[in-house]
Amino acid sequence: MSDNTFGKMFRVTTWGESHGPALGCVIDGCPPGVHLTREMIQAALDTRKPGTSKFVTQRREPDQVEILSGVFEVDHTDGPRTTGTPISLLIRNVDQRSKDYGDIRNKYRPGHADFTYDAKYGIRDYRGGGRSSARETAARVAAGAVAQEVLKHLYDSKVVLRAGMVQMGAHKIDRTRLNWDTVNNNPFWCPDPEAAKDWETELDKIRKNGSSIGAIIEVMAEGMPAGLGSPVYAKLDTDIAAAMMSINAVKAVEIGAGMAVAELTGEDNADEIRPGKDGPEFLSNHAGGILGGISTGQPIVARFAVKPTSSILTPRKTITKSGEEAEIVTKGRHDPCVGIRAVPVAIAMMACVLVDHALQHRGQCG
Amino acid sequence: MSDNTFGKMFRVTTWGESHGPALGCVIDGCPPGVHLTREMIQAALDTRKPGTSKFVTQRREPDQVEILSGVFEVDHTDGPRTTGTPISLLIRNVDQRSKDYGDIRNKYRPGHADFTYDAKYGIRDYRGGGRSSARETAARVAAGAVAQEVLKHLYDSKVVLRAGMVQMGAHKIDRTRLNWDTVNNNPFWCPDPEAAKDWETELDKIRKNGSSIGAIIEVMAEGMPAGLGSPVYAKLDTDIAAAMMSINAVKAVEIGAGMAVAELTGEDNADEIRPGKDGPEFLSNHAGGILGGISTGQPIVARFAVKPTSSILTPRKTITKSGEEAEIVTKGRHDPCVGIRAVPVAIAMMACVLVDHALQHRGQCG
Amino acid sequence: MSDNTFGKMFRVTTWGESHGPALGCVIDGCPPGVHLTREMIQAALDTRKPGTSKFVTQRREPDQVEILSGVFEVDHTDGPRTTGTPISLLIRNVDQRSKDYGDIRNKYRPGHADFTYDAKYGIRDYRGGGRSSARETAARVAAGAVAQEVLKHLYDSKVVLRAGMVQMGAHKIDRTRLNWDTVNNNPFWCPDPEAAKDWETELDKIRKNGSSIGAIIEVMAEGMPAGLGSPVYAKLDTDIAAAMMSINAVKAVEIGAGMAVAELTGEDNADEIRPGKDGPEFLSNHAGGILGGISTGQPIVARFAVKPTSSILTPRKTITKSGEEAEIVTKGRHDPCVGIRAVPVAIAMMACVLVDHALQHRGQCG
Amino acid sequence: MSDNTFGKMFRVTTWGESHGPALGCVIDGCPPGVHLTREMIQAALDTRKPGTSKFVTQRREPDQVEILSGVFEVDHTDGPRTTGTPISLLIRNVDQRSKDYGDIRNKYRPGHADFTYDAKYGIRDYRGGGRSSARETAARVAAGAVAQEVLKHLYDSKVVLRAGMVQMGAHKIDRTRLNWDTVNNNPFWCPDPEAAKDWETELDKIRKNGSSIGAIIEVMAEGMPAGLGSPVYAKLDTDIAAAMMSINAVKAVEIGAGMAVAELTGEDNADEIRPGKDGPEFLSNHAGGILGGISTGQPIVARFAVKPTSSILTPRKTITKSGEEAEIVTKGRHDPCVGIRAVPVAIAMMACVLVDHALQHRGQCG
Repeated sequence: MSDNTFGKMFRVTTWGESHGPALGCVIDGCPPGVHLTREMIQAALDTRKPGTSKFVTQRREPDQVEILSGVFEVDHTDGPRTTGTPISLLIRNVDQRSKDYGDIRNKYRPGHADFTYDAKYGIRDYRGGGRSSARETAARVAAGAVAQEVLKHLYDSKVVLRAGMVQMGAHKIDRTRLNWDTVNNNPFWCPDPEAAKDWETELDKIRKNGSSIGAIIEVMAEGMPAGLGSPVYAKLDTDIAAAMMSINAVKAVEIGAGMAVAELTGEDNADEIRPGKDGPEFLSNHAGGILGGISTGQPIVARFAVKPTSSILTPRKTITKSGEEAEIVTKGRHDPCVGIRAVPVAIAMMACVLVDHALQHRGQCG
Repeated sequence: MSDNTFGKMFRVTTWGESHGPALGCVIDGCPPGVHLTREMIQAALDTRKPGTSKFVTQRREPDQVEILSGVFEVDHTDGPRTTGTPISLLIRNVDQRSKDYGDIRNKYRPGHADFTYDAKYGIRDYRGGGRSSARETAARVAAGAVAQEVLKHLYDSKVVLRAGMVQMGAHKIDRTRLNWDTVNNNPFWCPDPEAAKDWETELDKIRKNGSSIGAIIEVMAEGMPAGLGSPVYAKLDTDIAAAMMSINAVKAVEIGAGMAVAELTGEDNADEIRPGKDGPEFLSNHAGGILGGISTGQPIVARFAVKPTSSILTPRKTITKSGEEAEIVTKGRHDPCVGIRAVPVAIAMMACVLVDHALQHRGQCG
Repeated sequence: MSDNTFGKMFRVTTWGESHGPALGCVIDGCPPGVHLTREMIQAALDTRKPGTSKFVTQRREPDQVEILSGVFEVDHTDGPRTTGTPISLLIRNVDQRSKDYGDIRNKYRPGHADFTYDAKYGIRDYRGGGRSSARETAARVAAGAVAQEVLKHLYDSKVVLRAGMVQMGAHKIDRTRLNWDTVNNNPFWCPDPEAAKDWETELDKIRKNGSSIGAIIEVMAEGMPAGLGSPVYAKLDTDIAAAMMSINAVKAVEIGAGMAVAELTGEDNADEIRPGKDGPEFLSNHAGGILGGISTGQPIVARFAVKPTSSILTPRKTITKSGEEAEIVTKGRHDPCVGIRAVPVAIAMMACVLVDHALQHRGQCG
Repeated sequence: MSDNTFGKMFRVTTWGESHGPALGCVIDGCPPGVHLTREMIQAALDTRKPGTSKFVTQRREPDQVEILSGVFEVDHTDGPRTTGTPISLLIRNVDQRSKDYGDIRNKYRPGHADFTYDAKYGIRDYRGGGRSSARETAARVAAGAVAQEVLKHLYDSKVVLRAGMVQMGAHKIDRTRLNWDTVNNNPFWCPDPEAAKDWETELDKIRKNGSSIGAIIEVMAEGMPAGLGSPVYAKLDTDIAAAMMSINAVKAVEIGAGMAVAELTGEDNADEIRPGKDGPEFLSNHAGGILGGISTGQPIVARFAVKPTSSILTPRKTITKSGEEAEIVTKGRHDPCVGIRAVPVAIAMMACVLVDHALQHRGQCG
């Protein structure tokens, strides 16, 4: 029941299995007149592509996207524009390597959705995890690329989205060294160049041991106006929380100061306000740019924790489909730190949520 | 756009302002034939009622609920049953004490939604916070009481919901003393009786200083079957995260091990499985009872952080509605730790989410 | 599943049974800043009130509406305005006269929903038809009154909604005498004063015989701009058709030329266009103001057929709840031509659909 | 805002333009375990394929469908089954012949959506009508084929869907000759073989004149159980009306006796009931199998009127995009009676609505 759709006015429906013929999405409700080319979407997809470093799955997928509808070049001089009709995006799967699935087919991997899919549906496409594979997020990244163009269109390119890994295992970045411009210079999207170096050594060890490790991702949006969101159930933070929690392997989401608010007093937590030239200026941002579910005009800040992948070389106790005791070892191409690949997905999800709320706001409040 | 509705098949729409004539909700999609009396709902409301201890707002609201529709006693022997039509619940506001709002009317309280409501709507019912007041959660608790009766109806009373405060400020409970049966014996819904005693002294100090403090709430459901939920965007954990994040003052949500998964290895995090007499038995529950967005049959466990209320006696810098510098002090009846009153709301939201997914599952999968 | 809600951005949820304590609705998504008083809504309700002529049910319901939320008078000089939060409206039932339901309780009235409610829900509030009673439409009329104020707000009072009965039984109005200004001068909302006189004699005969008769209602909106609606499933005509078909006893809906288009040629049916001073001018309106699901700027015109009520004095064959042969006669206060009371409901539904599409359009297309 | 999606639990999202690279749909919420092959869907598509007789557009589209997701053959002996995940269907466009669009590009065709698309979106894919083309219905037919397999799965193949043209222009079928088994034997899906012969001569004349004519289609479902549907806004007839009205060129929808109920008395209209061996037996079916929005167990019967296509050879007055007077003649491959091609679409839409309600009912009522 809408499980594969998110958003209310900017609605993204994704489809596709890890080892099926293709995956993709349909975007409904996109405003008309937005400049959109295949290359714009491809560039975003290239950022999450498998096989870009030794720290991400070695599956080789070119992830070439095709725009099947919703875009038209009216007069051949202005470039293609969205028409307001649904935008269908298609990505063919190429490197499925799906010959042998013996173990996964009959045994439930601990920490995976194998058992729960069977419990729910009574049937499971076990090839590469089927629908539960992180390959599904390619469609999200493609949709997010469209959302980013809509943001440019609506806000005159003033909105900047950023995301990066701020913790790997127990290793946190040093916020005094934080530099968002460096996230593309290391394989972790880490905004602290020093930390990134240490992490490389660390993760290489984990990778060679056939183990895996968790991570924390931070994602933010700068330049969004105040007044977006809704105050009760469709809060901006509610939707961001849902969007991030829907990413594979995520187990927690924070807005602004997050879990740490538990330890704050009212004096510490309240972000004081001063008059500014373009509206209020806040002296701090514990709120993460959202009060009462509505944006304040400050940067919108979220963080989420990604669990370590359960596909590891150490044997784990499990059961078979028919309920017998078994052990399982997951060989094959996997991610020692799946958190890495969640970074472009986080930006995509944030972009979609922001566009959705921008359109909703315009609808109700003009 | 559906801001005031949550759920897909068990849909709860709430309405009402803090100082308006009344508040309430409409529940649509409730299964027919569920035993439901006014007293069942009233009992739940009594648990979140203001004024029950010195640690919650001293506003005196009897919160008497009236069932206006959706229930019928067919033959006067069996007790009233739901009919499958919408259930409308009404709670009149009584103690509004709304004479004087001078400061709130023209100044934005830091940490409150005053500014953002104005930014969004251009108009704001400032009396007691209007729609952004925690009074709205009375309607949630009433709806949650209905949801709990549906759970009993569907699962033969096997599902047990629990919630309590597990951290107040920097003070965590000691999990070796955890005893859920004691949550009703202290004003914090704290499942650690020793901690509760310390917290009482601590919070009294904060209260007398006119300050406030944050908290962490844990909520869980035992006895839910495996197979509920959905794997992509309507994940069970996605919906739980959204439900908890929608509660006033919540800034973070965790499922199972939560933020701590960042520091785990794949070996530690994977919940191993052994054959059990009623299906799989898991040797741990880092997953919080949810894998791939679908329930495993283990207890479903969530936690969330509640920020300290910003209504404090210490003056804070702010601006007026017209943008001038000002200071504000919030007097009046407020909660030194709003986390306390979030506990019954957490149970209510969890009950609603579980019923919603139970019905969705039955619809798609039979 | 949303059975009791209609609209996407301007969402109306109704609740209440014929003989329960009250009925009402919650309107979510209303734009802020719209002038709205209790009296505006009451005036609309007074138009559909039972007991206004001998041709409508003699039940005596004052239908006094109370606004419970969503409206606020900021500075006591400008009148109350909507705040953008949900508007809850309450109407108490007064004259239920519900002592004796013997026959309805155990026998299924042919042409009524008695049997189908039992087939669906296994339980049925048989008092006065319960939820299936036309009393539910009081809530629609109240919501429609709000929608009409939103239309004034959005379009500067340029939109005019009209509705009337254009056929009663086999008796059609004479379109050469059509005068919409006369609909309030007769008990049928008939825009042909001559026809209205004849219908009065005719319906009096039917009423005295304890019989009933069907009718056709026409509803239109003048002054709506071009460009509202959507082209595929959320067509403006799709939503109008659904809205009208959802009114009790309606069995058919037409847009523009309606069923008659079957007999037209392409030459006859195409509404030719000429340049006008404010955009295109159409030389005819077979399309009923809608092409490809989107408004043309011409009057939006719909018609629908209302079946005769099945509550008649002539005995009809039926069965009892336990499946035995029976006969049934429906005594009590009923409408000889329920189509009459559908007229204000048609205006209300049209207003809600138009507001919903206006907000959707503003959201997607700015 | 969901314009391209219909259904609540069985959700079909279509996409694609007439002259874009492809069209297709995504079906979300399909129950798992349903036997589904590409051939089943292809067979349905072949029934609406263009170019099958001289009375339908001569565009040559093979309409080969590809299943991209949502189906899996677990053990290679039982045939592919749906997995409960979204089913993505793709149909490539082949014969676009889109060289020359001069006239359509700058002039608005009367009776087409050209002007209204521009009024709404400010941009329009004019090639072959873009999204407003009847080619979109290929995706509906594909989705409907899936829905039909779900109906077989749910109801053990007891449900029979039928549709046919019952009126062309002023020429109605003779109901005494009605034989649904003959609909495949003539180019009109006409259930009266004699009428079909006359229509052939008649329509050939119209075709040669470059003119067009309207039609009425009847669609029905036999064998559906009682109790499906909902009583207020999500009525079974409301959803059928919306589904049929959403088909291109449809201007009216009737359920059961339809517009004719206006002329009936309560005595005539009430379908009397007698005890039957499998529940109630109705002595007539004016209700079209639906009372109070819920199915009675009788055949569900709807009819709808399709306007004549406005693409005709006779010049029509119109305006250009820039508002100047003009004349337009539509050459090219068009349908003299588009009603013909609506017949398979009607079956598809009916199947989707029935599955959607079957799942909703199972969800709420078990």
